[in-house]
Amino acid sequence: MSAIKGKNNLIGASIPRIDSPAKVTGKALYAGDIILPGMLHGKILKSTKAHAKILNIDISRALALPGVKDVIVGKDTPCIKFGNWRLFPNTQDELPLAVDKVRYIGDEIAAVAAIDPDIAEEALSLIKVEYEELPAVFSIEDALAAGAPLIHDENKELKSNISLDRKIDVGDIESAFKTADYIREDTFVVHPHSHAYMEPCATLAETDSEGRVTIYTSTQTPYIVQCLLASTLGIPENHVRVMKPAVGGGFGGKMELRKWEFCAAFMSRRTGRPVRFVLSRQEELESGRRRHGMNLKSKVGFKKDGTLVAKDFEAYLNGGAYNSMGPTATFLCGNFGAMLYRYPIYHYRGYHVYTNLPPAGAMRGFGAPQAMFISESQMNMAAIDLGIDAIDLRIKNAMVTGDKIEGVTTISSAGFVESLEKVASETKWKEKKKNLPKNKGIGIGCYSFISGGVFNWFNTQYNFSACEVRAYDDGTAHLLTMSCDIGQGSDTVLRQILAADLGLAVNMIRLTAGDTAMTPKGDLGTWGSRVTLMNGNAILDASKKIKEQLAKMVSIKFNLNVIHDVAFGDGKVFAKANPKYGMTFGEAVTLWVKANRGEELIARGVYTPRDKGLTTPAYSFGAQVAEVDVDPDTGVVTVEKITTAHDCGTVINPLGVEGQLEGAIQMGIGYTLSEQFAMKNGKTLNTTFLDYKVPSAEDMPQIVSYKVDTYEKEGPFGAKEAGEGLAIPTAPAISDAVFQATGYRCKDLPITPEKILRSKGKI
Amino acid sequence: MSAIKGKNNLIGASIPRIDSPAKVTGKALYAGDIILPGMLHGKILKSTKAHAKILNIDISRALALPGVKDVIVGKDTPCIKFGNWRLFPNTQDELPLAVDKVRYIGDEIAAVAAIDPDIAEEALSLIKVEYEELPAVFSIEDALAAGAPLIHDENKELKSNISLDRKIDVGDIESAFKTADYIREDTFVVHPHSHAYMEPCATLAETDSEGRVTIYTSTQTPYIVQCLLASTLGIPENHVRVMKPAVGGGFGGKMELRKWEFCAAFMSRRTGRPVRFVLSRQEELESGRRRHGMNLKSKVGFKKDGTLVAKDFEAYLNGGAYNSMGPTATFLCGNFGAMLYRYPIYHYRGYHVYTNLPPAGAMRGFGAPQAMFISESQMNMAAIDLGIDAIDLRIKNAMVTGDKIEGVTTISSAGFVESLEKVASETKWKEKKKNLPKNKGIGIGCYSFISGGVFNWFNTQYNFSACEVRAYDDGTAHLLTMSCDIGQGSDTVLRQILAADLGLAVNMIRLTAGDTAMTPKGDLGTWGSRVTLMNGNAILDASKKIKEQLAKMVSIKFNLNVIHDVAFGDGKVFAKANPKYGMTFGEAVTLWVKANRGEELIARGVYTPRDKGLTTPAYSFGAQVAEVDVDPDTGVVTVEKITTAHDCGTVINPLGVEGQLEGAIQMGIGYTLSEQFAMKNGKTLNTTFLDYKVPSAEDMPQIVSYKVDTYEKEGPFGAKEAGEGLAIPTAPAISDAVFQATGYRCKDLPITPEKILRSKGKI
Repeated sequence: MSAIKGKNNLIGASIPRIDSPAKVTGKALYAGDIILPGMLHGKILKSTKAHAKILNIDISRALALPGVKDVIVGKDTPCIKFGNWRLFPNTQDELPLAVDKVRYIGDEIAAVAAIDPDIAEEALSLIKVEYEELPAVFSIEDALAAGAPLIHDENKELKSNISLDRKIDVGDIESAFKTADYIREDTFVVHPHSHAYMEPCATLAETDSEGRVTIYTSTQTPYIVQCLLASTLGIPENHVRVMKPAVGGGFGGKMELRKWEFCAAFMSRRTGRPVRFVLSRQEELESGRRRHGMNLKSKVGFKKDGTLVAKDFEAYLNGGAYNSMGPTATFLCGNFGAMLYRYPIYHYRGYHVYTNLPPAGAMRGFGAPQAMFISESQMNMAAIDLGIDAIDLRIKNAMVTGDKIEGVTTISSAGFVESLEKVASETKWKEKKKNLPKNKGIGIGCYSFISGGVFNWFNTQYNFSACEVRAYDDGTAHLLTMSCDIGQGSDTVLRQILAADLGLAVNMIRLTAGDTAMTPKGDLGTWGSRVTLMNGNAILDASKKIKEQLAKMVSIKFNLNVIHDVAFGDGKVFAKANPKYGMTFGEAVTLWVKANRGEELIARGVYTPRDKGLTTPAYSFGAQVAEVDVDPDTGVVTVEKITTAHDCGTVINPLGVEGQLEGAIQMGIGYTLSEQFAMKNGKTLNTTFLDYKVPSAEDMPQIVSYKVDTYEKEGPFGAKEAGEGLAIPTAPAISDAVFQATGYRCKDLPITPEKILRSKGKI
Repeated sequence: MSAIKGKNNLIGASIPRIDSPAKVTGKALYAGDIILPGMLHGKILKSTKAHAKILNIDISRALALPGVKDVIVGKDTPCIKFGNWRLFPNTQDELPLAVDKVRYIGDEIAAVAAIDPDIAEEALSLIKVEYEELPAVFSIEDALAAGAPLIHDENKELKSNISLDRKIDVGDIESAFKTADYIREDTFVVHPHSHAYMEPCATLAETDSEGRVTIYTSTQTPYIVQCLLASTLGIPENHVRVMKPAVGGGFGGKMELRKWEFCAAFMSRRTGRPVRFVLSRQEELESGRRRHGMNLKSKVGFKKDGTLVAKDFEAYLNGGAYNSMGPTATFLCGNFGAMLYRYPIYHYRGYHVYTNLPPAGAMRGFGAPQAMFISESQMNMAAIDLGIDAIDLRIKNAMVTGDKIEGVTTISSAGFVESLEKVASETKWKEKKKNLPKNKGIGIGCYSFISGGVFNWFNTQYNFSACEVRAYDDGTAHLLTMSCDIGQGSDTVLRQILAADLGLAVNMIRLTAGDTAMTPKGDLGTWGSRVTLMNGNAILDASKKIKEQLAKMVSIKFNLNVIHDVAFGDGKVFAKANPKYGMTFGEAVTLWVKANRGEELIARGVYTPRDKGLTTPAYSFGAQVAEVDVDPDTGVVTVEKITTAHDCGTVINPLGVEGQLEGAIQMGIGYTLSEQFAMKNGKTLNTTFLDYKVPSAEDMPQIVSYKVDTYEKEGPFGAKEAGEGLAIPTAPAISDAVFQATGYRCKDLPITPEKILRSKGKI
């Protein structure tokens, strides 16, 4: 049995997204579009203080407002703490609503459900909260200063605002540095960054007569939301059903249980009516999750010839008021600090620090954009000091297939050197760099990323990924999966994988995804660029079982000898050596159903990484060159061209990878040049897209990309990730190009015109 | 392994209906309650002629009406005929919309989809149909008369308006009658009868970007609708998803593909928008399906002592313009003619006759109310002539457990004699009958019914019934089934069966039913009183598999010897002999998931009757006594008391059976006394519940019922049907009581005051 190569092979075909027609015609139903009879509208009251005790909450006037059907405060709830790191319960530091104190401006205090959103909003204004203000800390330095207020003083195990640390010690760092010819030590500061997904979060909850809750919610992780929502409500896990409707982007910002999900469910149970929350852009920007700001210090040593000797890396993460996904970012930041190059000796110290800011969480790249902004900048600075071309220096130290990362894993495929060579040749790197016109710059940044994580912080009992495939006598199949398309196109890619393997047309595959009551349990959702590899493997597992059954039908019908391979393609099942011994897929299923006296032909497929260490089953790699122009008078940076060569293993859908790349570059440019939270005493001041400046289509440069040829044996059809890695290299590449154009070396993102002009003494 | 008896045993517990809270609070969503964005409203243009050629249809003015988005006529469709009797394709005589001719007043001709229902209605009035009228026939006599117009002249195999016949020949009838001491031959006429379900039909269809259709429809048979809709649309079966929302009654009237289902789906595919049809009560009564009117002739012979000798039964069914479920009614009418008593010799001739009336279809009892009205009336008349008490005569001839019905089956359980004895003693039958006050009457009628059908007219490839059970580590389970609760309470009973068998509380079972994309394939739906027995058996099959797996966990954990039985009860799994060797259900599932490295514990269960002949796996039995008062001046019959003793095997849910009984009596009283279609030249004149008189709560008599103790070994926990059989005995019982009170013997339903008074010469 094998998938047919050639014209039937869908792997590598640019298939348009299955969800596009509904989205471009406005027919797609997002959580905020769904209406149920009798539905109430919810709003949440948030703290106006960065750090304060709650002395009293008076909801009486809100309750009395006509049209208000329910008002809840923390004490009305079961007061059960939650957090994604279930494996370590004491990291679970959030309550559904604040009870004794608030820890940031935006901390949720109370919720209202009313017959329309305006009444709910008015009711919020009628709730009176009495606070006793406490001293607040916003920076890592202040949070760690002697005498700083302890933000989570209720956790007696914590002696400071460091909620969690992570150490990596590979080799003797002191001795190693003694052998170095060149050592540099840099301190960088990277800023928080908004996911800025197109769709603000929304949740609609309804409750059945026995108290079971169904929520339609904008999420990346239905299973995680199901488990945590059930635990905070104090009901069995399977009394909660989470359904993922169309989702307008996540980027890591929608992978936790959120307060409005709890409030919608809880108030729906109390009122017996559906309750819907739809967040505003202001709410999202004001107190939503964001990428971690970090203080980073890196000491790196080289031999004269450029050979890396050792690295000592330290990261302080400004976690804001709660852990959120900070523990993972703290861990991964350390892992990514050791990636891309062969560091024989590597030390890492990571600290997750509570402050009175809105909590940071997971965001595209998950610790890597920060870790690699400093490491790639250091490579560029070291190259200059060592007098070695920046790309040559990288190639000298680049990880290659078969490299072992001490204590982590063996790299099963790496097209990093090829990526570097490709961008060098395609951009005419050396020639261009030597002949840079005035105010022009060319710079490089690279990346490596994980294809899904292995470390089981959620402590799932189920396989990491699972699916079910049902094959029908009409020549169609049904793929059920808990994987979530949140705009990245996975629904399209997963159908493509199954269709290719079963030899069916893509539109013969019905797909049902992201419904915890119906789709197979335990897939942890969309994050860490895990879907294509993990769910893809689960699909191939199920498909293999289906094919084994159908191959039998052909063998029986045509009396095939055991040596005959049976192939699947063009909607047919046939002897590979002699296709006339064959039948349609539907006919084969019919025979199977008859043979099994009316059973349905169904197979479950699963995937959990085995023998791949604790980080990931497979790493992507890539290199990116940015070309910029900097206006000498205004300091404005224009990114003119981005050239990327990337190794994501086999490309399942080139169109999809292209979309990921373009989106990543847009996000990378924003991160590097224009997006920055304006904060004052813990309050976010820029809460619209007029003030929080996300690059638009007009800001996009020319984009050229090249796929480097690799095959990842752990990936489905050889595929690896292409979702997050591509978001990493843009910042160091632009920064390097800006340095080439202006002499300004950024160690404090973002790169603003003001910083460039100040560096020139122009302001 | 066994379910725990005693306090944990849910079998026999009166558990309130799971759907009641939503229904009584108005929260239940029926198809007509569901709103989708951009939804269009559909209306159907129906024939005003009973029989005519369509010469031309002009839709131009309708199309031009602002707000109209689509207008279709028959020629726009793929013109694929459909019908439930897929096994015999030439019985499939309906088109989605009429093309060349119309065959009854109400035959669907065109459909409109518009932005609101009023515009759609107005558009209908703008469609101009040119007809060439043809001679029409309404009665069986006219339809079979020489020179009658052939209603389906397109079917060249038909030589008359008889679309189908059915013969049963058991024994030599001529010789048998020669041995009889007493022979009577009667001719009866029974009238059509409306299902009068509370919820008029509604369907909402939507189409995805690849042309797959989802319909939410008021149906008893999602799988049948899926298959036939797909075939009429000309698309793969699994490109159609049928979802059954709350359904407000069916009684056989919602078990086919209906024209509005096709039109909603077809126009949704054309317009790309959701399209909803909601029928009015007028439409339902004017041209909806109805129970078959029949002309019946029965010749029956007895020995002097009352022993039955032979029966020769003939039925002509007035089928209306199409076959619908008429073939099944024709078959079953013959089967039911042979039921209840030991007829050593039995002949049957059944004829399904086309007329230009609205098609008759399946309705509660499915041929039995008609067959048993004449046979039970004949028993009552014969008893008088033979001078034997009517109950004694029945007991003498009653079927008992182990009786063989020639060519059909062996009766595996029969509590008929016990039922007769019970009503006799509880009503003080003989005493009361001897001392009847003036204008009072007491009469008896009996029934037997099938617990699901075996004959596979739909030609399904799948098991007759199937389910899936998923067991979870939180101590809950999920039951997925294609069975349909249409108001009869099966969702409650099926959960009860699974909960009892797994030893869980009922509310620990999530139930998902009636969704062809999600729930197991092939269950044929709700008709023929099949759900409790067939799906109940499928559930026990799945439950057994789950229990086998969990029992292993207990055996491993506690090192149990092979002799130990493992029991399930109170949410626990334990060694029966020593319950301390046990754990919670959830803990057992957790162990299983660990043992199976993250798989889900899932089992599919199936049921298809084997070695049970072609009719049914099990028969219910029962007897009913009616007591009436007849006003001598007005002829108005008041039913004062109904006493029923019934054998439905083990009663799973007494409350549910009671509900079925009360509903059946209400329907039976309407059938006998007040409900009658007023027809004029093929047109139904009474199209509201003011004119079509369904009994109300005020018309209900005192009801007393007794359960006779039997155990049906083919049924789940010993259960048989209680849904339809109970609808049968009321008409003959009331008719007999009216005879006792007035001397008027009804052979022409309904019994009206006019008929009673005419029989007395009073008018």
